Amino acid sequence: MLTFEDKLRNYAEIAVKIGIGLKQGQRLLVLSPVDTAPLARLVVEEAYKAGARLVDVMWTDDAVQLSRFQHSTADNFDEVSSLPMSVQLEYAQAGDPILAIRATDPSLLKGQDPEKVSKYNLAFSKSRKPYLEMVQVNAFSWTLISAPIASWANSVFPDAPEEERQDKLWDAIFAATRSDLPNGLDAWKEHIKALDHRARTLNSKNYTALHFKSAATDLTVGLPEGHYWESAQNPNRAGDPFCANIPTEEVFTLPHRDKVDGVVKSTKPLTYMGQLMDGFEITFKDGKVVDFKAEQGEDALRKLLATDEGASRLGEVALVPTSSPINRSGIFFYNTLYDENAVCHIALGSAYRHNMHGGVDLTTEEFKARGGNESLIHVDFMVGSDDMDVDGILPDGSREPVMRQGEFVI
Amino acid sequence: MLTFEDKLRNYAEIAVKIGIGLKQGQRLLVLSPVDTAPLARLVVEEAYKAGARLVDVMWTDDAVQLSRFQHSTADNFDEVSSLPMSVQLEYAQAGDPILAIRATDPSLLKGQDPEKVSKYNLAFSKSRKPYLEMVQVNAFSWTLISAPIASWANSVFPDAPEEERQDKLWDAIFAATRSDLPNGLDAWKEHIKALDHRARTLNSKNYTALHFKSAATDLTVGLPEGHYWESAQNPNRAGDPFCANIPTEEVFTLPHRDKVDGVVKSTKPLTYMGQLMDGFEITFKDGKVVDFKAEQGEDALRKLLATDEGASRLGEVALVPTSSPINRSGIFFYNTLYDENAVCHIALGSAYRHNMHGGVDLTTEEFKARGGNESLIHVDFMVGSDDMDVDGILPDGSREPVMRQGEFVI
Repeated sequence: MLTFEDKLRNYAEIAVKIGIGLKQGQRLLVLSPVDTAPLARLVVEEAYKAGARLVDVMWTDDAVQLSRFQHSTADNFDEVSSLPMSVQLEYAQAGDPILAIRATDPSLLKGQDPEKVSKYNLAFSKSRKPYLEMVQVNAFSWTLISAPIASWANSVFPDAPEEERQDKLWDAIFAATRSDLPNGLDAWKEHIKALDHRARTLNSKNYTALHFKSAATDLTVGLPEGHYWESAQNPNRAGDPFCANIPTEEVFTLPHRDKVDGVVKSTKPLTYMGQLMDGFEITFKDGKVVDFKAEQGEDALRKLLATDEGASRLGEVALVPTSSPINRSGIFFYNTLYDENAVCHIALGSAYRHNMHGGVDLTTEEFKARGGNESLIHVDFMVGSDDMDVDGILPDGSREPVMRQGEFVI
Repeated sequence: MLTFEDKLRNYAEIAVKIGIGLKQGQRLLVLSPVDTAPLARLVVEEAYKAGARLVDVMWTDDAVQLSRFQHSTADNFDEVSSLPMSVQLEYAQAGDPILAIRATDPSLLKGQDPEKVSKYNLAFSKSRKPYLEMVQVNAFSWTLISAPIASWANSVFPDAPEEERQDKLWDAIFAATRSDLPNGLDAWKEHIKALDHRARTLNSKNYTALHFKSAATDLTVGLPEGHYWESAQNPNRAGDPFCANIPTEEVFTLPHRDKVDGVVKSTKPLTYMGQLMDGFEITFKDGKVVDFKAEQGEDALRKLLATDEGASRLGEVALVPTSSPINRSGIFFYNTLYDENAVCHIALGSAYRHNMHGGVDLTTEEFKARGGNESLIHVDFMVGSDDMDVDGILPDGSREPVMRQGEFVI
């Protein structure tokens, strides 16, 4: 029986070795909330033990973020701090890895002035653009993990006694990340092998489109010529493998930016930049959003879609069976890293260049001409369900079942 | 009777308004240990309330620092992170203020490989050089404050019950910084006025040297032509006043780099970069250290003096009466910000350009030719005591008493 400390150390080791795939002599940037310091410190230790030359930690804090919204005026919100993105970009440009611990209050900005929120989101997306471009070509190894903070655990387990909430979230995280296994590293290697096998199978099919069908959704997602299915473990530009998400259950590729048609309904809430959107339905025509409504957060969704031209087109389509451990746990995490690995999802905004053969070497215009989407944003939302069927459309126009009732059948 | 929360808020307000002198529309960088987050968050809030346009917080962590020494090899220690200094330099060059909360385990690096420590200190000093140059000309407003962390409180109050140590340190900090007064801001304005008056008196004397004499010390410190006495509140390059240290009890100027002669004994321990030096005696001839010994930390002192040519010469001389509140408290803080404000002190290493009339506009060579010292380091150590007399040597060669038995008499 592993202790909490054992599991926490396993988790840090998995993040450094499976997530980053840290190499001897590398420099590593760790991003962490102040409140997840115990995990961040273990990550630093495991990185040095694995031969890191230097580990920087750049800490973040919800309270500092919120304070600006509470105490500063809207005319200041066309500017965001240049600090985080300049540091991350410096690492990305040097080809040095970045490990981010993501934990935030899912409703941090609830009730804040919508003008401030909207200005902030746009300014943030713009400031992130050069960094996002490096991410989209896998210029460096990067990994997202999570760790409980009080506000997040309160959202996930509101009915549990307050003092147990963070422990319950830790248990869920340890289970989903295989950190509760004595041989977690080996289990991860097996898991990635299985996901890679699934990606190879889909690549061999060379579908021209996927058709998602359930009671709520009827959406055809065209796939461009040269699209490429991947698991979350990929080589970076230098050829070294890393796993961008811990946990990960998905295989994913890019949709054709002009060939998405039909209606899709979200099956889980989405939290984005401290705002919650839920029960939203989006209609696409020729790749572009032509209609939408939401039971909750419709205004936030409207502003998200209006970010730029590419924000109302798709940049990712990902297949995850509903039998995934995260979905089976029955927990809604209010954290996209977890929730997107519960069921099938699609993303508004920019596509990953490496999801197209030769994509990393194309100009923006060439990439778009071949069907790749570009935007300041990349926001995943969940569309899979127990009653969802997915068909693959073959190059000859015939179709075959890919998923039935939420499960893979190929 | 003010509550703890009242005092904490007073302290944050004093730091922002007296320390930084924050102006409407300014950007502010806050440096804070992860473990002093409650104070840092209040500083952020007070800064936004005072009209800050944007507040960045760059967090630091002793454990991350220590981890490198524990788990990385000595051959990696010729490099330090470029992150903190590049961010601070960006602010300094823009003329934007920096507020630093300084708290560290005074014996953090005790027992660590001396080769690593020595390489680290040199690499750190080099990386800090461009920033230190901006500090020395007051290119921007900057303020140092402190806040308890467990390891530091343990050093200061080792005999108190463990759960009371941080509270006792908070009490000492609130008292020394006037944060326990309902009208702390006004009290600060009065205090600075009194220090400024003292500085003006010393400037009117135009001493050519000071002679420090006690049972342990017999040191003559020459003062260059054009030297200028200041309190810790000064104008920055743009002419806006700030107070570099909270608390502050000193008036200070620069010694002549070639005109320091005699023997000086430290009267309090010195902690520098996680190492403790105590009971050290230094002999100067023509401004340069020619002999030294230490009861504790002699090797650390040797390496410090060997940093560069200027490290074995003086860059500051400061007068503080032994009746100062910090000295009267009887507490040794293991933190130079506090301990240097207990009694008279001098500093090894570089001088502040603004302590010489026109100094900020001189080249390095011109500054040195006029008696100003330059170095990668600036390390204060305490020399004042109850039995110390200080004489001022007037331009005509006559002398007059400045301090007797540790107290001002002019």
